[in-house]
Amino acid sequence: MKINVMQDVLQANDRIAAANRQLFKEKHNLVLNLMSSPGAGKTSLLEKTAERVAGKLRLGVIVGDIETTRDADRISKFNIPAIQLTTGTECHLDANMVSSALPHMELDKIDVLVIENVGNLVCPAEFIVGEDFKIMILSVPEGDEKPLKYPLMFHESALMLINKIDLIQYTNFNLKEAKANARKINPNIDIIEISCANGAGLDEWVSWLMTKYHDKTGGAGHA
Amino acid sequence: MKINVMQDVLQANDRIAAANRQLFKEKHNLVLNLMSSPGAGKTSLLEKTAERVAGKLRLGVIVGDIETTRDADRISKFNIPAIQLTTGTECHLDANMVSSALPHMELDKIDVLVIENVGNLVCPAEFIVGEDFKIMILSVPEGDEKPLKYPLMFHESALMLINKIDLIQYTNFNLKEAKANARKINPNIDIIEISCANGAGLDEWVSWLMTKYHDKTGGAGHA
Repeated sequence: MKINVMQDVLQANDRIAAANRQLFKEKHNLVLNLMSSPGAGKTSLLEKTAERVAGKLRLGVIVGDIETTRDADRISKFNIPAIQLTTGTECHLDANMVSSALPHMELDKIDVLVIENVGNLVCPAEFIVGEDFKIMILSVPEGDEKPLKYPLMFHESALMLINKIDLIQYTNFNLKEAKANARKINPNIDIIEISCANGAGLDEWVSWLMTKYHDKTGGAGHA
Repeated sequence: MKINVMQDVLQANDRIAAANRQLFKEKHNLVLNLMSSPGAGKTSLLEKTAERVAGKLRLGVIVGDIETTRDADRISKFNIPAIQLTTGTECHLDANMVSSALPHMELDKIDVLVIENVGNLVCPAEFIVGEDFKIMILSVPEGDEKPLKYPLMFHESALMLINKIDLIQYTNFNLKEAKANARKINPNIDIIEISCANGAGLDEWVSWLMTKYHDKTGGAGHA
């Protein structure tokens, strides 16, 4: 007899994710699962996004980290409801962890819920949590070959944000190569170049976000 | 009855790691388990190290990646024996994976064996593979708070290399803060600032490596 532990884990996860998804549908929330390597700029992106969508979209954030509440603290400064999940040793968020945060959020008052995953280019991509889209950040200093080396992350993501584009002149990062590598893994992936440091590309990102929100809620939402 | 799967996995891993360690001792190999986030510079460090220790230390490398043989290909150009382990979906190397590579290496002809782990700041730190030391790279663009957010990695490492120090002027990375954060987690951690781009600090790193090699082999080794 063979016990496939991982398969059981994933099936249980998918059931909880489906329940989360149903709740988000009822509440007219667009839900994004935001992933990247450590330090690629997930929290910075949320700070910059908060500034830009103020008065247009109401954000909510669930942040996963091994330790510390630093990221939720940073986001709370923008008067955005933010819940920190500290995972201890877990290297990713799963549907159950996200589910445990939901009773503490007023989902009726949120248009876009962003789930900021643990910084990790591998494991988070294996778990759905009830999101509409997985999106990911590749930062320029990480290198242009990353889609080939960590394919699942790029395969599962609807959008790749290439962040720290302001540093490109100091690195050997090849933008054309990075895009070609990502599209080799996922021909349908959207790609936007951004800099949270100087603001480049952030309007395009916010426009992507607004479009996806309106596509999902069809005007039935709150915004 | 409670079945603690993770505990069983770790115990089995530790038995294989002990066997690896015994073999490395017989062969007079200093063995380093090199870890970092994706794109922090593990392979670049090995390239620069190979140039600097040529004629003094004989390197061998085992590289773990989810996909591709790019890193082993890069290292092989320096006439260094390099074996690529592609892990599929596994987010870390374990002792058994390393063990599977050893029959393919002439350990008698290697002084320092570097095991370049999968790019991941979380999971690799949980597994010993038979190494003498875990060492890790934090790259400047990742941010100075990473030791607090990913404590196990910093706790387990004997050495933190702060790479891409040449980029520091273009970021808000605070060097003093980064060191203090690492020492808060691990008071005994050695810290060396380096740049694989301009060569800064690499002599100090090679000196650390030579010292650890001679400490272990006491002149009984090959070099």
